[in-house]
Amino acid sequence: MGSRPDMREYLMQTASEIMIAKDSSEVSLSEIAEKANHSPALVQYHFGNKQGLLHAILERDGRRALAQLHELMDLDLPAVEKLRIHISGLVSAYQRAPYLNRLIHYMIQSEDQEVSGKVFTVFIEPLAKFYEVILAEGVASGQFRDIPPMHLFFIVTGASDQLFYRSNTLRVFGISEVTEEVKKDYVRSVTGIILGGLLVDPGAAARIQL
Amino acid sequence: MGSRPDMREYLMQTASEIMIAKDSSEVSLSEIAEKANHSPALVQYHFGNKQGLLHAILERDGRRALAQLHELMDLDLPAVEKLRIHISGLVSAYQRAPYLNRLIHYMIQSEDQEVSGKVFTVFIEPLAKFYEVILAEGVASGQFRDIPPMHLFFIVTGASDQLFYRSNTLRVFGISEVTEEVKKDYVRSVTGIILGGLLVDPGAAARIQL
Repeated sequence: MGSRPDMREYLMQTASEIMIAKDSSEVSLSEIAEKANHSPALVQYHFGNKQGLLHAILERDGRRALAQLHELMDLDLPAVEKLRIHISGLVSAYQRAPYLNRLIHYMIQSEDQEVSGKVFTVFIEPLAKFYEVILAEGVASGQFRDIPPMHLFFIVTGASDQLFYRSNTLRVFGISEVTEEVKKDYVRSVTGIILGGLLVDPGAAARIQL
Repeated sequence: MGSRPDMREYLMQTASEIMIAKDSSEVSLSEIAEKANHSPALVQYHFGNKQGLLHAILERDGRRALAQLHELMDLDLPAVEKLRIHISGLVSAYQRAPYLNRLIHYMIQSEDQEVSGKVFTVFIEPLAKFYEVILAEGVASGQFRDIPPMHLFFIVTGASDQLFYRSNTLRVFGISEVTEEVKKDYVRSVTGIILGGLLVDPGAAARIQL
């Protein structure tokens, strides 16, 4: 990991691991430097400051999810299928990076307008656009009820990360960890509830096997 | 506010206001003391430590919501009506205390087992019980599909606080603040989606005016 890109990648990976272990997006330069076994100055050299490092992590984690989003929008599929695929992908994105919503929230709060502005351009606006397009398609084809895109955005992203955000409460329900089976069951319920509630013709819910 | 109960109330109120203003549950003893114009020692005198203060806030904010929950469980109403009333009450609870989910999350992470244990006894377990009872009633009466209570817990609580948690993204949707009208519209969508997706006979969705 001597070359510059490898070191960047290593420091980003270290910071993600700390966020996952702490179950928080609150991570300090000195924590990252200590775990990476390097000086805080090296982190500063590669990323400018903590915000620069966190933004690089956000871009890395979000790039894959957003690329999938764009592909999905262009696919020749009914809106209901696109939304089903999206929810499943979103839950998996939160599984890989359970701190994602909290990191986005934290970055938007930044006093540095360039930092918060970038989060809007890179994340919030494309996601908002996706829900707008999907809803317009679904309403036009008579599949979806007409609800505000903002509501669908909040309901889908709010429900999708809870299995990981609330992982410290799972034991109340007799579950010790989030296995693939636990995740699949959750995706099935979230998809079933949201698509079932959004469809105009609820009989279709049965036909498309919610 | 010289007497002891008033001072406790005043310090709790100050801490809530800081959490709302910072849009975060991360608040330090010195921030609270500074804004309250008292010494950190006074906060320690009344609450022992920061955890004690945060726990007192959680109990204050949660007491009302949990009292309503117990009344609701005992009402002679169909499960679908109970869930509708619950969602509306929950969104209002998050409006009053937008930091509630994050504070619960933070307190559960506490290394002090007595603190995290109390959060389970006072919040998580009664809520889990509520979803279990409501679902059992709704499934027994043939109204609800049979989904795991944990899933309904996560979907309802995850979706209900997003209007406030994501208030810093509202401008993307042309909304400048959460008015009563904005809140009512959101409650209507969350209720419509979740009840619509949970009902076995989706025709009932129209009859009960989702």
